[in-house]
Amino acid sequence: MTKQELFENIQRKKSFLCVGLDTDVNKIPEHLFDESDDPIFAFNKAIIDATADLCVAYKPNLAFYESLGLEGWEILERTVEYIRTYYPDQFIIADAKRGDIGNTSAMYARTFFGNMDFDSVTVAPYMGEDSVTPFLTYEDKWVTLLALTSNKGAFDFQFMKDAETGERLFEKVLKTSLNWGTDENMMYVVGATKAEMLTDIRAIIPEHFLLVPGVGAQGGSLAEVAKYGLNSTCGLLVNSSRQIIYASQDADYAKAARLEAEKVQLEMEQILFAAELIQ
Amino acid sequence: MTKQELFENIQRKKSFLCVGLDTDVNKIPEHLFDESDDPIFAFNKAIIDATADLCVAYKPNLAFYESLGLEGWEILERTVEYIRTYYPDQFIIADAKRGDIGNTSAMYARTFFGNMDFDSVTVAPYMGEDSVTPFLTYEDKWVTLLALTSNKGAFDFQFMKDAETGERLFEKVLKTSLNWGTDENMMYVVGATKAEMLTDIRAIIPEHFLLVPGVGAQGGSLAEVAKYGLNSTCGLLVNSSRQIIYASQDADYAKAARLEAEKVQLEMEQILFAAELIQ
Repeated sequence: MTKQELFENIQRKKSFLCVGLDTDVNKIPEHLFDESDDPIFAFNKAIIDATADLCVAYKPNLAFYESLGLEGWEILERTVEYIRTYYPDQFIIADAKRGDIGNTSAMYARTFFGNMDFDSVTVAPYMGEDSVTPFLTYEDKWVTLLALTSNKGAFDFQFMKDAETGERLFEKVLKTSLNWGTDENMMYVVGATKAEMLTDIRAIIPEHFLLVPGVGAQGGSLAEVAKYGLNSTCGLLVNSSRQIIYASQDADYAKAARLEAEKVQLEMEQILFAAELIQ
Repeated sequence: MTKQELFENIQRKKSFLCVGLDTDVNKIPEHLFDESDDPIFAFNKAIIDATADLCVAYKPNLAFYESLGLEGWEILERTVEYIRTYYPDQFIIADAKRGDIGNTSAMYARTFFGNMDFDSVTVAPYMGEDSVTPFLTYEDKWVTLLALTSNKGAFDFQFMKDAETGERLFEKVLKTSLNWGTDENMMYVVGATKAEMLTDIRAIIPEHFLLVPGVGAQGGSLAEVAKYGLNSTCGLLVNSSRQIIYASQDADYAKAARLEAEKVQLEMEQILFAAELIQ
């Protein structure tokens, strides 16, 4: 998907919501295990059907699928296929946080862009340029690079200041990676728990899209994120996982997920309207 | 496996070799595709049978298996089972370079330590403490944390100097992570292309095991690594992948792999003897 297409989807749907498909076998409604031979896929399908018109992206976190072994990997493949087939306007992110030496990252790129039809993969920056660039060789596919994460451990290394430049590590990651790709094939993970930091981040990457986790269950505020992060093509994908997909653990889970997604979409519509990005 | 058991295996086998099972479907001998329904597993099995008495560890890189989809994941599971069953003294490392927020890293830990019976997983440090510690809750299982990698991109961020302490990022990773685990459940990836840096590294972590990639195909020298890295329990696992497993692409590939592994083992035996770690 191109950046322009992504922005048009956001305008048409009046939403920059990404729904995180962190589907946990221990958290999905119990009745699904009686009703379906394939309860996890059934759950994903119902969540997707209930939310697809309210969001522009889905983000399965690989850990939840890998932890189920072969079956999980198969469910992941089928989930991506299902979204591609029935909701082709969705941007699909493999939240895999991969990254290895060049020839190995090329293998991961093949997995997510060749074998499966993801639009983007999250990549960890620690190993530098040759661990990231193999993901950038696929047309209209994206790297979503970790910059500033939303967890407590983000403070261990990401704020370390460079003795030479005064830049913090996450800023150095942003600046250095500007040489690897463009705002047409790279976006960045920026945790919403630190919305005011978006000012510093936007000074370095005014045009790029940001994937913002941590709104909702992890504690960030959508209004704050928009205030500091919005740009002329929206430039934000805000992710919500648990708050939407586990809104209810009863038979009404899909309906409850839709209601939660609707709340977020409405707030996003107001934000986009106020910023004159939609009419 | 405990640290003491690992050291005893090293002494008994007179080797601290780790064989990297980076099995690439495009690089294994062609005749395997005619002879076997399952050529990749057949290759792994033959390499393992030919080298198991010469090494103390195997390290499959996940990228090579994931890139084959479901089939690859199954081959990985069977490879781990095969090693566990026939060569239970081997330390098996999932070279997966995972790392995510706490609850998600816990899922990855379950994958590699609960579902599969790996001894260790490589983990990227960028996201800090809560991305690493979930891997440390399994008894006698290890985190192998990336500190200083052997690729060109290592220079992008890992050498950044902390304005406050003067420490480079990889040193800060070592020091900070000393609070997360011990030398009984953490080891570190340290690239062999920078053997002289092992002096600085040993000043911070004198007792820990290091997993050293990059000897052989990536250009490092075993003698140099031993000179600066050896400690009283050996403290080194030196990995070789391509140089051993692709020593020949003909019918004699397993024999050729054994010959390469033997060369390395003999050099290691001399090193261990000279250091009085074996008699």
